[in-house]
Parts: sequence; C-alpha cells; structure tokens
Amino acid sequence: MKKPEVYDWDIRVRYSETDQMGVTYYANYFVWFEVARTEYFRSKGVDYTEIEKRKIFLAVVDAQCKYLAPTRYDDLLTVRTWIGRLGKTSMTFGYEIIEKKSQKRIAQGNSSHVFVNEKIEPVRIPEEVTRSFS
Amino acid sequence: MKKPEVYDWDIRVRYSETDQMGVTYYANYFVWFEVARTEYFRSKGVDYTEIEKRKIFLAVVDAQCKYLAPTRYDDLLTVRTWIGRLGKTSMTFGYEIIEKKSQKRIAQGNSSHVFVNEKIEPVRIPEEVTRSFS
Amino acid sequence: MKKPEVYDWDIRVRYSETDQMGVTYYANYFVWFEVARTEYFRSKGVDYTEIEKRKIFLAVVDAQCKYLAPTRYDDLLTVRTWIGRLGKTSMTFGYEIIEKKSQKRIAQGNSSHVFVNEKIEPVRIPEEVTRSFS
Amino acid sequence: MKKPEVYDWDIRVRYSETDQMGVTYYANYFVWFEVARTEYFRSKGVDYTEIEKRKIFLAVVDAQCKYLAPTRYDDLLTVRTWIGRLGKTSMTFGYEIIEKKSQKRIAQGNSSHVFVNEKIEPVRIPEEVTRSFS
Repeated sequence: MKKPEVYDWDIRVRYSETDQMGVTYYANYFVWFEVARTEYFRSKGVDYTEIEKRKIFLAVVDAQCKYLAPTRYDDLLTVRTWIGRLGKTSMTFGYEIIEKKSQKRIAQGNSSHVFVNEKIEPVRIPEEVTRSFS
Repeated sequence: MKKPEVYDWDIRVRYSETDQMGVTYYANYFVWFEVARTEYFRSKGVDYTEIEKRKIFLAVVDAQCKYLAPTRYDDLLTVRTWIGRLGKTSMTFGYEIIEKKSQKRIAQGNSSHVFVNEKIEPVRIPEEVTRSFS
Repeated sequence: MKKPEVYDWDIRVRYSETDQMGVTYYANYFVWFEVARTEYFRSKGVDYTEIEKRKIFLAVVDAQCKYLAPTRYDDLLTVRTWIGRLGKTSMTFGYEIIEKKSQKRIAQGNSSHVFVNEKIEPVRIPEEVTRSFS
Repeated sequence: MKKPEVYDWDIRVRYSETDQMGVTYYANYFVWFEVARTEYFRSKGVDYTEIEKRKIFLAVVDAQCKYLAPTRYDDLLTVRTWIGRLGKTSMTFGYEIIEKKSQKRIAQGNSSHVFVNEKIEPVRIPEEVTRSFS
C-alpha cells in the first residue's frame, strides 16, 4: 500500500488557547486541525475561499482527537495532515500533532466531511479538489 | 437626567474561557457583552435573527473593557447592559459586570455599533429597534 | 441492562460560536460537552472547583463528536450527558445534543478522561465522584 | 518626539474566527493583540513563559479596539505593536492592524497592563522587560 502524502504545518500555542489547568484546552486541537486543512489545500493550489464563493462548503460530519500528551503556551507544534479517503461527495482527513522540539507525538485525530450547498445538501466534490488530491 | 433602563443577564464562566493565569481570558468579556446584547434585544421583543434575515447586521465599530478584578472558572456573573445613545444608523451600549455572590463590580465596558447591509454599508436602524429602545 | 442516568442542560448558541458558513463552528460542540459535564457534576453535589483546589484535574484523553444536523445562532439546545464507564482513575461520558424546539437530535459524542495530579500523572478518582456517580 | 519602535507580526484569519456575518468576530482582535505582544517580547529576547514561571503575570486592566474595516477568512494581516508607556509596575501597548495585500488599516487598539503576582497584587516590572524596552 502506498503511504499517503502528508502535509506539515507549524502552529504555536496561543495564550488564549490555554486553560486554568495550564495546558491547551482540548477543543482547540480541532481548530488547529482546521487551520492545517486550509493550509494543505493552499499548498495544493486549492483556494477554499474560492470554493465557498460558489456556495459550496466543506461541512464536518465526524471529528475525533486522541490526546497523548499535554501541550502548553508557546509550544511550537507541527500539525501533520493527510487525506484518508476521497469519495464522490465526501472526504476524510487524518492528523498527527508533534511537539517540534522533542519530536514527541502529542495527539492524533481524524475528521470526515461532506461537501454541501447553502441548504446543507450534499454536492459533488469540486473538480479542483479531486484533481489536486487524487 | 433620567437614568437609563438596564438589563441584567447572568453568565457562568466556562472552563474554556479561563487561561493558564487561572482567570478568565480577557477577550471573553467581549463575548459576554455580545450575549448580553442579544438577550437585552430578546427581552424587548426584538428578534436579532429576524433582522439578519433581512440582511441587516449590527457591526461593531468600537469596543472597550476596563478590568477591575479577575473572574474565575464557575463564577456566576451578572452582565448589566444599557443603551448609551440611539442614532439614525448607529447605537452604543454600556456594560457592567458584577460578581453575583459578592456583588463586586469586576468590569465595565462599552461598544459602538452601526447597522449595515451585506456590503457593510450603513443603513437606517431597523424600526423595531427604534420603537423598542426609545 | 439498566439504562444510565442522564442529565440535561440547556445551552443557547452564541454569535461568537457561529462561522461564515452560518452554522456553529464544529469545535464549539466540545466546549458545550464540557459545560454539560460541569453542570452534571454540580447537579450531583460534586464541586469540580473544589477538586482542582486539591490539585486534581480531569484531563481528557479522547473526544469525539458526530454532527447529524447543523445548529445556528440563537438555537436553544439540550445537551444530554451520562457516565459511560467509571474506572479506578478514569471515566467516560456520553453526550447527545437535541434541538429543543424540534426535538431533533443534532449531535452525539463521547469523551474519555483520566484524573491527574499537577504533573499530569494519573491519580485515583476523587471519592466524592465515585460516591455520587456509582 | 522620538517615534516609538514598532514590531510587525503577520496573522492569517482562521475559519474559527469568523462569524455568520461573514467577517471576523470582534473579540478575536484582542486575541491577535495578545499574540503580537508575545512575539514582540520574543523578538526582544524576553521569554514571557520564563517570567510566568517566577509567578509574575501580565494582567490586563484596560483594552480597546476601533474597527475601521472588516476582515475575512484567510485574510493575511499585519499586527503592528509598540510600547505606549513603561511605568514601575505597568505598561501600555498600542496596536494597528493592516491588511497586507491592500495595506489598508483595518483596526487600531491599545491595552494597559499591570504586572501581578499569584494573588493578583501589583509587582515591579521584571528587570528584563525594563532593560529590553527602554
């Protein structure tokens, strides 16, 4: 089996993303996943803003994260992203978060998405997405 | 001078709203101001969602908060809201945040807004707003 | 098999929680899960703030959400929470989110947690938690 | 009068930071101000994490933002930061946000801070801050 292409994007933990436990609040990992998805698209020449202008949106239907080790304010992290599956109207992403200095894996996750129109009805994946990620 | 009508809405500090200093992260006070504005509108029979359906939006042009004392996770707060000024296309709000148990004032703020259309151009204040708040 | 006890807590979608798709941004469901956990604890007489004062924290190790239908600004939602499993150092929660007016189920989720000390090392579940939820 | 030194830090608008008006939610500008402060400190060799390890925190006492033009998802912005005033226990920052492509000024702001200990009592500004910013 061919290993999937991965895309690495660095993110620094913001003060606003910490909580009183002194670590990153767990919901923010999903924000980082989304930032990494955007940058992965950009790296392949796919302009997600352009897709939304045609009233096509990438709605999430499932998202999961496993937290292996805490992250803290100002930590520099690599969010590694790859395409799990590319269907007719849907696609899935896999993620790994690695603490840059120690190269320790601190989280892994995945998300499933469906392309939808303004009425949140499924539509075919935009052609430029299929072309860029197949 | 007539004292303005005030509207009180209670908010409990969420874990996600704290930071590693062990207190509420400062940007969240502006989120609370916005929740209180919504609820003040609702209390006067003004449905802000209905206004937005007509493609009229309440854009913010200025916002300020003075932090008098920290708040912490699970604190129960009263956000007091009032109208400062009601113009032809704009309106201002004043706010006070009071810690419920101690009745200590912990923040005060204000925000200025302009009603705009989808192109972010100023429009007249919706009639139901003028009627309800004058 | 005995059906687990459930706890219902109502949450209204904040403007800050929406995104430009016009629906709630997906990471915020995890914030709501956490608010519901806090309120479930409170309803059983367990003061989570008190637990943290003893330097015991409920760290998340896994979290998942399935999004069945979008939610929008100002929607009133019921977050239903229950204990999935109560171990020696860990516990899991299940969640359902129901749109109050339509009684439509709009999301389901779960999270796994470990009680840890300040060094993020596992510790025994606090006695008041075991007592209240067994 | 000597023009103050400024520090520029680029930030891209995240999807999570937009709201259903299709623009950035107003509270997020304060998050960006804080990111820019951190990076300004770093650029001067001041490690804010190190300061907090000595149980000294930079608490905010006042924050304000004027919104001159909206920003949208994926916009690349420059947050320009400078020191307004450096006192014995307090310091103020000024900010400007510029949209990178058009070089249009889209916001200006300021914040006042006091250095505090764990009990949120004012303490002297850490020596490395005075040294680096005077």
